[in-house]
Parts: sequence; C-alpha cells; structure tokens
Amino acid sequence: MTEGLLVFQSDFGINDGAVSAMHGVANSVKRGLPLFDLTHQIPQYNIWEASYRLLQTISYWPSDTVFVSIVDPGVGSDRRSVVAKTVNDQYIVTPDNGTLTHINRFIGIKEVREIDESKNRLPNSGESHTFHGRDIFAYTGARLASGDIHMEDVGPSIPTSFIVELPLKEAVIENNSITGVIDVIDRPFGNLWTNIHRLQFKQLNVEYGDKFDVSLSINGEVAYEGEVTYGRSFAAAELGDALMYVNSLDNIGIALNQGSFADTYKISTGANTEITIRKAVITIT
Amino acid sequence: MTEGLLVFQSDFGINDGAVSAMHGVANSVKRGLPLFDLTHQIPQYNIWEASYRLLQTISYWPSDTVFVSIVDPGVGSDRRSVVAKTVNDQYIVTPDNGTLTHINRFIGIKEVREIDESKNRLPNSGESHTFHGRDIFAYTGARLASGDIHMEDVGPSIPTSFIVELPLKEAVIENNSITGVIDVIDRPFGNLWTNIHRLQFKQLNVEYGDKFDVSLSINGEVAYEGEVTYGRSFAAAELGDALMYVNSLDNIGIALNQGSFADTYKISTGANTEITIRKAVITIT
Amino acid sequence: MTEGLLVFQSDFGINDGAVSAMHGVANSVKRGLPLFDLTHQIPQYNIWEASYRLLQTISYWPSDTVFVSIVDPGVGSDRRSVVAKTVNDQYIVTPDNGTLTHINRFIGIKEVREIDESKNRLPNSGESHTFHGRDIFAYTGARLASGDIHMEDVGPSIPTSFIVELPLKEAVIENNSITGVIDVIDRPFGNLWTNIHRLQFKQLNVEYGDKFDVSLSINGEVAYEGEVTYGRSFAAAELGDALMYVNSLDNIGIALNQGSFADTYKISTGANTEITIRKAVITIT
Repeated sequence: MTEGLLVFQSDFGINDGAVSAMHGVANSVKRGLPLFDLTHQIPQYNIWEASYRLLQTISYWPSDTVFVSIVDPGVGSDRRSVVAKTVNDQYIVTPDNGTLTHINRFIGIKEVREIDESKNRLPNSGESHTFHGRDIFAYTGARLASGDIHMEDVGPSIPTSFIVELPLKEAVIENNSITGVIDVIDRPFGNLWTNIHRLQFKQLNVEYGDKFDVSLSINGEVAYEGEVTYGRSFAAAELGDALMYVNSLDNIGIALNQGSFADTYKISTGANTEITIRKAVITIT
Repeated sequence: MTEGLLVFQSDFGINDGAVSAMHGVANSVKRGLPLFDLTHQIPQYNIWEASYRLLQTISYWPSDTVFVSIVDPGVGSDRRSVVAKTVNDQYIVTPDNGTLTHINRFIGIKEVREIDESKNRLPNSGESHTFHGRDIFAYTGARLASGDIHMEDVGPSIPTSFIVELPLKEAVIENNSITGVIDVIDRPFGNLWTNIHRLQFKQLNVEYGDKFDVSLSINGEVAYEGEVTYGRSFAAAELGDALMYVNSLDNIGIALNQGSFADTYKISTGANTEITIRKAVITIT
Repeated sequence: MTEGLLVFQSDFGINDGAVSAMHGVANSVKRGLPLFDLTHQIPQYNIWEASYRLLQTISYWPSDTVFVSIVDPGVGSDRRSVVAKTVNDQYIVTPDNGTLTHINRFIGIKEVREIDESKNRLPNSGESHTFHGRDIFAYTGARLASGDIHMEDVGPSIPTSFIVELPLKEAVIENNSITGVIDVIDRPFGNLWTNIHRLQFKQLNVEYGDKFDVSLSINGEVAYEGEVTYGRSFAAAELGDALMYVNSLDNIGIALNQGSFADTYKISTGANTEITIRKAVITIT
C-alpha cells in the first residue's frame, strides 16, 4: 500500500497525556507519519457513538487510511483486538466490541484479522495492561500506515461474520409515513440526526417547501408534535423555526434554525426515541 | 504560490466527525497537505469572534497560508462564499457574512472572488446542502493550498468594497481619558481585551507603574471602578490585584494577577460594555 | 541533531487563537515542521500537572523531540526561561518554575541553558510582554527542532542543581502496608493514580486476584475504606466494583470498573490526600 494516513479516535478526552503518548508511539515507529485526530471526545464507553463517528468520516478519507479507534470498556477481557479492512481498502484498528457496526453495515468489510499481541505489541511496554490504545492499537496502526507490516502480518484471519455488531434499527415506511429513531445529536448545534435515509424519505414524494407532521416520543411519551417544513438548508426556515433537511450523512435531520432542537424539546438518542414523519394533509376549506 | 499551509476554524466543536471529514477532504485533494486547526470552539454562530480570532493569529503565519473559516448561520441562504486575498498574500476561504471584518480593517484585503460552486464543489457531495464547510470551503481551501487551483480559478472577482462588515467601535481620547469597549474575554484566564491600541494609550503619557482610574459599565450600570496599575506583565501586580498591560494583539488588557477579572466582576463583551481609563490624579497633601 | 518533532503543552485552552499563533510562529521558522499538541487543557497555573503530563508522555517520543511547555503564572517576573536536555537527548523549553520536577527526578536532565532573549525572541514581537509562549518558547523550540540553532546557541549554561523543583512525596512501606498520595486523577475516567510504583507494591508479595484493605483520607478524614482486588485490568472486577491495577506509568491505580472512583468518593489530589494499602488478612473460620 501507499504510505497511509493515521487517524485516531477515542474516549480519552484531551486533558491528559494519553493521546500524546499514542502520537509519540506512532512517531517512534516512523518519524513524521501524518497523524490526525477524528475526536477523542466520544462519551466514555459509548461504543455506539464510536461506530457512528467512523461512518460519518471514513468516506472523506483516501484509501489506505488507517483508523485507530479505542473505546474499550473491556480492555483486558477476552474481547478481540482486530484490524478490519473495508471494501475501499481502508483499515480500522480497534477492539472488536461493536465499533465496526456501522462500517460493516453501510460500507462493507472484506477482511478481519485478530491482532497477534506476541508480535504486535510495543516493545518494553511493561506490566501495564490497561492502555492497549498505546501499546497495541496505536503501535499496530502506525506499523500498518508506515508499511512496516501488512495486513497478513497482523495475525490470523477471522470470518467477517464473527464481527461483533450492535443492534441497528431500520426506519420503516407504512401508510405514507416513516418511523425511525434518532441516531445521534449533532452537537454543538443540537440538531437531531435520524436513521431515515434521504431515499426512503423521497418515497413520500417530497419537494422543498412541503410540510410534514412530525412527532417524537421517548418511551412512548410524546416529546414533540408539530408541523415541520422540508428545506434545502437551515435558511429555509425563519429563525427559531423547525425544519427537516438532508444532513451530511444523507439522512434526514431535524433542526431549529439557529436554535437547539435537542435542548428545547429534551430529545435524547437511542432505541426508545421514536420519530414519525407524515406528509401534512392539505385541507381545502 | 509555494505550497501553502491550510488552517481551519469553525464553530463545529471537536466532539463529532465534522472536523475530521474536512481533514479527510483536504487529504483527498492532496495527501499529506499540512493541516492545522485554529480553533473549532467559536461560540455557535458568533461571526464577531470568528473575525477576531483570524486577526489574532494571521500575522504569525507565513504568506500563502490558506485559512478556512466556517461560522455560517446562513448556510444555504444567498450569502456569498468567497476567497479573500490579503495584502500579505494570505487567503481566507469563508462565507462572506462579517468574518472578514477585522482582517479587512486592520490587515487589508486586496482581492475577493466569489466561489463558483459549479467548479469548486467536492465531487459527488450529494444532496446535502448543510455542510459547505466540507463540500465547498475545505475543498476549495485544499485546492488553493495544494496549488491545484489559483485565485483566478475560484470564480468571479468582486469589488473589495462589497465585503460584508460588522460594525467596529473605535476607542476615543477626550480630556485625557480614553473610552473603549471590551472586544473579547481572554479565556480561560478571564482577562479583558479592549479595543484600545497601545499607541492610543501611550498618548496619555504613560510609564510602567503609573496608576489609572478605570471604570467599566454594562448598559450604563457601573460594573467596576478602581485604581489599576499599568505593568509590563502580570507579575507587576500582587496576586489578585488588577493591572493593565499591552496584550499579545498590541491592545490594552485588564487582568487580575492569577484571578479572573471577567468572572469576578461579571464583565461581558460587546458594544454595551464601556471602559474608561483616566490617569489617576496625584493629590499632593 | 536529526530534525526534531515539536510538541506543545500549555494551560491556554483551545478556544482562542493563542495555540494557533504558536503554530504559526513554528511554521514561520520552518514551513512544515511536524507539530503536535500534548494538551492545552492543563488547569490554569497548575505547574504540578504540567510537570506530570510531561513525564506521562516523554518516553513514548523519539530522541531529539522538542517539548514546549508553557504554564507560566510568573510571566514577566524574574523566573528563568530555559531549555533542558534530558539524558535521552530530548528537549524541554519552559519557564523554570517547577515544570521540570518529574522529568528531572524520574528521567534525568543532563544540561540546562537559560534562554538569552536578546538572541532568541521572535523578531518584531513588539511591546507585548505577556505572551512568551509565542514570542520566546515556541520560537526557540521551533528553531531547535528545525536545527536553526543548537543547544549551545540558547544562552548560558546553568548547573542542573539550580532547576526549580516542586516537593515530591515518596510512597513508604512499613509493617506490610504502603502509604502514598494521589498524584493525579485520570480524567475523564475518574481513576486515581497514586505515587506507588509497581515495584514497591510488589514487595507486598502480590498476585493477581489478591485482596487489599485500602483506605483514603483527605486532611485526616476518611474518604474511603474498602477491600479492593488487584487485577490485571479493569475487566478483573465486576461492573462498578473497585480494583487496583498497574497503570500506564507503571504506578498503582485505583478504579471502579466503568465508574468514576474520584467522583463517587469525592477524592482530590495533593499532599493532603493519603492512601494506605494493606494486604487483607485471611481469617480461617
């Protein structure tokens, strides 16, 4: 492979030396290897969000890019350390704990290898067994990106069907309405990002400017009900008004123009938050 | 131009994948292009601060540096997307919504071109119209920095007089006192940065160690009144004492030595916050 | 020296242009010099933590790496600006205010030079005397890393015995128990990192799975008392249970598996927080 770029993601935060230790390991493998940080602000232990953020960014990076993602509540347990190779020849070095869920479903993974720690562990990394991010994942990622090792040197191959997956809900269309969930809040803006794909939404026969009845419920209790306009962008709504739009992942988003929908209506994410979108009936009076 | 450096600024925060998607686009334009982040913590929609932070940093970067600044509450409206070229041959790629205010006033802009999105848009960037940071600004900035395109390929030239400007207050000297405003709080320290330039202040005939009557009012109500010493640096005051100094932008700052002036006296920024500095009268008794 | 890497640390935060101004200065010295940020989130004026974070990371970086650390409450006072060279040929550019404490004690410093500001100050850095991070430290660090200057060009040599040191407590073993302090909280996870080294702990004749009586007191008041299992990693404890482990600095850490020990028991750091670890007595009944 071409010398790769190395992109880090974790739930370590940016207040201490953990990220820098990983950057140092990468530079010790190969001085000047191009390093990037996706984010280190994944909420602690939130594997779902780690998986989602990889999907949000990976398509914008060149092939041969190596992603190192460490949200690893099971560090030291028997969860596998793996390298996954996508159908676009990008790599993800990660504990196999669900972090590969979205990439596997929406991009595609063609090869997975378990990291053989007897060969792929930072030399002299001592008696600490709590920082695999530095000692295993950053080290292996840097060696892959620099070309020191290749996929076949990582360790034994594993069937892709073994990849650990979190449950993913699919949006469904029924009786001219779509029901889905809120995958993630687009912080800091507070927009809601649904799991409803643009192409599903288009089946409702929509045009910019159309109005929709939108309802959101959390654990079955209504959190929001209102009429929302479908717009090309935020500017399609008055300040503070709600609008629907196609977000940067090609899914449907819900926003208040220059306000926070999530904070205003106290919307959270997850399987218990349901959104229903129905084309508003035009009553002729 | 020499291959340029690419510097990003936004109000996106660093918790999700938005910044990394822009970094990926830049690397897809040219692998290994040197990328930097000014800050992504501009308060949401705060165009004033985006403009100010560019002024705070631009002089320290070499010529040919390309800044991409995206604080863009009007994304999708008819606000212009532009590239501005400064008198020092640096570039700013930004929505033209006031972000160029300080650079235009205090550095100087010699050429502005509107981005022709038919030629300068990330290929296959799909039906999303809410992330121009990635699809237009990062893409165009990376192409400029890498030399793929030049200023004349951006799009049609616009008179520099068309640049959208936010109102800028000037400090005034009258009767041996200076009145100005607080442009920004120097976080995390809590120092006040005024719009009073060192050279204006020097007209009061000042020496290190001189004392001044300083008053601050918010909407006409006094928020602080006290005697403040002018010092070379924070160490010129006792711990917790107030002092005036020349800040890193060559303007007058007000601080509490190792304390937060802004938090202690609840000082905010903006046109409603007025500061008056008057040389303390020495009474001979 | 080989062209070095340049790593920044400060208490400036990442919300304004201060860090970017330093990055710009470095690029003005040498375009494309490899730059990294250790952290800029050191709590304001907290020299102890600056010193600790350097120790946490430095061993993972190659020789010739130049660290620029600016936590500088005394900027503008007569505290010295120095460059320290470690026994591993790494450099630290910093105010000499205690920031070198841990490196000096646990790694070793073989040469210190005071920065001669008449030769090592950013040209035209004006009348501001409050931002030595930009004007002295980043500038000098970049010139060292790029090879523009060498250690002997920094300024006059100083005996290493002059290095300013913060008091460091050592853990002590007595009657089969160890008493130490909490050096730092491992945020965002909330684990406690003690000053008890693995090798000290091993003198208690320990095995994974052994149980220990642990007590923590703050200013003499008990904050926690309980039995804690020594494990290889977090997975050795049930969710929410306490465990002891060897942390990534080869010291003993105390954690709640997927919980925050520090927040749950309101533990703070510093000399007033004492921890005692005693092997649990096995009573045969």
